[in-house]
Amino acid sequence: MNIRFFNANIVPFRNADAEVILGELWVSDDKIVLVGEPSGAPLSWDREIDCRGNLLLPGFKNAHTHSAMTFLRSFADDKPLLDWLNEDVFPLEKFLTGDDIYTLTTLAIMEYVSGGTTAAFDMYYQPDYVTRSAIDTGFRMVLCGSINDFGGTKETLRDEFEKYNKLHPLISQVLGFHAEYTTSKALIKDVSDLAHELCAPVFTHNSETRQEVEGCKERYGMSPTKFLDSLGMFDFGGGGFHCVHFTDEDTQIFKSRGLYAVTNCGSNVKLASGIPPVEKWYRDGVKVAIGTDGPASNNCLDFFREMFLVTGLQKLEHGAASTDANLVLHSACSVGADAMGLSECNSLECGKQADLIMIDMHRPNMQPVNNMTKNVVYSGSKENVALTMIRGNVVYENGRFVTIDDPEEIYRKSNAIIARIRRASGR
Amino acid sequence: MNIRFFNANIVPFRNADAEVILGELWVSDDKIVLVGEPSGAPLSWDREIDCRGNLLLPGFKNAHTHSAMTFLRSFADDKPLLDWLNEDVFPLEKFLTGDDIYTLTTLAIMEYVSGGTTAAFDMYYQPDYVTRSAIDTGFRMVLCGSINDFGGTKETLRDEFEKYNKLHPLISQVLGFHAEYTTSKALIKDVSDLAHELCAPVFTHNSETRQEVEGCKERYGMSPTKFLDSLGMFDFGGGGFHCVHFTDEDTQIFKSRGLYAVTNCGSNVKLASGIPPVEKWYRDGVKVAIGTDGPASNNCLDFFREMFLVTGLQKLEHGAASTDANLVLHSACSVGADAMGLSECNSLECGKQADLIMIDMHRPNMQPVNNMTKNVVYSGSKENVALTMIRGNVVYENGRFVTIDDPEEIYRKSNAIIARIRRASGR
Repeated sequence: MNIRFFNANIVPFRNADAEVILGELWVSDDKIVLVGEPSGAPLSWDREIDCRGNLLLPGFKNAHTHSAMTFLRSFADDKPLLDWLNEDVFPLEKFLTGDDIYTLTTLAIMEYVSGGTTAAFDMYYQPDYVTRSAIDTGFRMVLCGSINDFGGTKETLRDEFEKYNKLHPLISQVLGFHAEYTTSKALIKDVSDLAHELCAPVFTHNSETRQEVEGCKERYGMSPTKFLDSLGMFDFGGGGFHCVHFTDEDTQIFKSRGLYAVTNCGSNVKLASGIPPVEKWYRDGVKVAIGTDGPASNNCLDFFREMFLVTGLQKLEHGAASTDANLVLHSACSVGADAMGLSECNSLECGKQADLIMIDMHRPNMQPVNNMTKNVVYSGSKENVALTMIRGNVVYENGRFVTIDDPEEIYRKSNAIIARIRRASGR
Repeated sequence: MNIRFFNANIVPFRNADAEVILGELWVSDDKIVLVGEPSGAPLSWDREIDCRGNLLLPGFKNAHTHSAMTFLRSFADDKPLLDWLNEDVFPLEKFLTGDDIYTLTTLAIMEYVSGGTTAAFDMYYQPDYVTRSAIDTGFRMVLCGSINDFGGTKETLRDEFEKYNKLHPLISQVLGFHAEYTTSKALIKDVSDLAHELCAPVFTHNSETRQEVEGCKERYGMSPTKFLDSLGMFDFGGGGFHCVHFTDEDTQIFKSRGLYAVTNCGSNVKLASGIPPVEKWYRDGVKVAIGTDGPASNNCLDFFREMFLVTGLQKLEHGAASTDANLVLHSACSVGADAMGLSECNSLECGKQADLIMIDMHRPNMQPVNNMTKNVVYSGSKENVALTMIRGNVVYENGRFVTIDDPEEIYRKSNAIIARIRRASGR
């Protein structure tokens, strides 16, 4: 398929500058083949899209989520993290079947693509079902290993890593484990050994709550970051999810090792976990990616709300000039891709994967057009997502889910799942 | 016109309980004539709307805004309040004509209705143009007096009050002045005198920044709330916008006088003004309404983002159980109406004005339906606004602005206004 976008404002994100160029973007099969001024012979177009000045961006990269947790949206609210995990999440997740996870992941993917997210870094169980949902819907999914004391070993992690990194072009896997506080030192050491064996980066939940950091200090006399680093965990890169309660030393380790701090402000707000030191990370040159966390703690998968929170919470802490909106947009579109190992999706340039979104500027919240990219971060909303393309395929357009036959069936099944779990759990 | 909504989930907000009932809602001309189980003879229907289980709510009431400031959206960002006001807002507003204000208010109204807001409490200049825009678009606008040392007197305020309270059913006026820090004591005293003359409530910006409170203490030895109360300003009710830096004594004055604290979290975040004591207000029984503030400081007019911030910021400060989502929804739909003097729009009950919105639950961010009202606050978005009705007229439906002939014309004119102001101001 050859698709031509014309009359487009384009933010290619060739670098951190949110430069806007007016021109065309050509897609051939899964790749971008031209950005900017047309040159050379036009292709034989299967489709030509007049963007009417609308904005093309690399899609948002949701760099930390638990997609299938859609079933607990608005079910388990208003509790701090550990109560929420131990009283609601862990007991209720036990009732989920593989088919449930397929349905619930599909529901999350619908929310991703309707909000302009083209890839997710997903940590959940039963990856066979997660990946099947992604493949069936044309969504790009990077699995993050999630072993911990409740399940998984070095061997299962290696097997998954090998299996999912050759399964399908939309699917990949990155090494990971759930968190220091749910994983024994022996198993953590196994993960580090595997990272060395595979020369691969590792991601995990890190310093989400004050309690977690204090627990780790009691156990090992060090912060989670320092403890994991002392085991060689990050010798081949990686990063942490949340990273709310970071010391300057933690930040320094992240900077010197080139690790990604994945911030999850919506979830940190709702679970009352705290405000991460994002402004400091940007100033110190730590790579910042953005995730929603799962839909049971956020409670949505909305990158517009998330981007506003990333900059807004820093302004509250450090003043109105903090955490430039364009840096946040770069994190959302580009740095997140790098964190997930998707450097082929981190910009709109020739040869890159055609993962992109069209932002409708012809809506009142985007007018007048004083600054397109600040409009996206400060006043954008899911209503502005006119089109979402992944690997050259349009998966969402003008409110319609192109790759989902019957959205209502997904809603019905999702409601049936939580109804069944309510009955089984007596909740 | 007789309009029948059926198969609806309805949150009538007869009281603060966010009770959901399944049934019908009948509208005849500007009024609601039935809510719940159908009884009596059906009317002769001009239109019947199958809600398919979607949610009917009283519309959101934006209880503090400066609508026409749309022209500065993403133009003057990343500054604290006083710099932003003195360097950007005040100098650039001087270039606005009445026709500009008509266009820019219309742009804001488009954003209101597309986001489910059915009424706004607007503080701006040239009310003739503001009200004409509201009347032409079928939007409900309550003007808040805004006199200060740069313009306006007791007499002009009285004239406006009398004029706009009899102009049109969609328009009303409440006494107000800009703020203590922009208004001389003599003029403030005049407003208080007028409140006594008219037995009317008064609203003003109050304690938005720490600087403002300190300035007032230097001038008068009291907080703004205490100072204004000492002048008898609130003897007939009223309230304050922002109220970020409130002492317990300020809260006590608001409680004992039945005043409305109108919170503006998005703006307070973006201008780094601080976090208002909303949780304390709810606990102490202070009436809490919600506003976006103007689109140049927020930078949008999105009540979904606003509601999440109202509860989210309190959770950050006081724990995950703080500031119940249903209380926030009640503030948004109902308390805001009371603050604005629109008690006829504060619930979906027989005899009340037909100001309502339909929330589309058939979208992935609202599924599964574990808790409809929490879904609205925690995961809702403007994409969920399927229909907005004001005074019995549908003004927005499925992305279309029913009362605006040509949205593109409003966008073109808005861009022309800021282009002209850029040239004139050399900015």
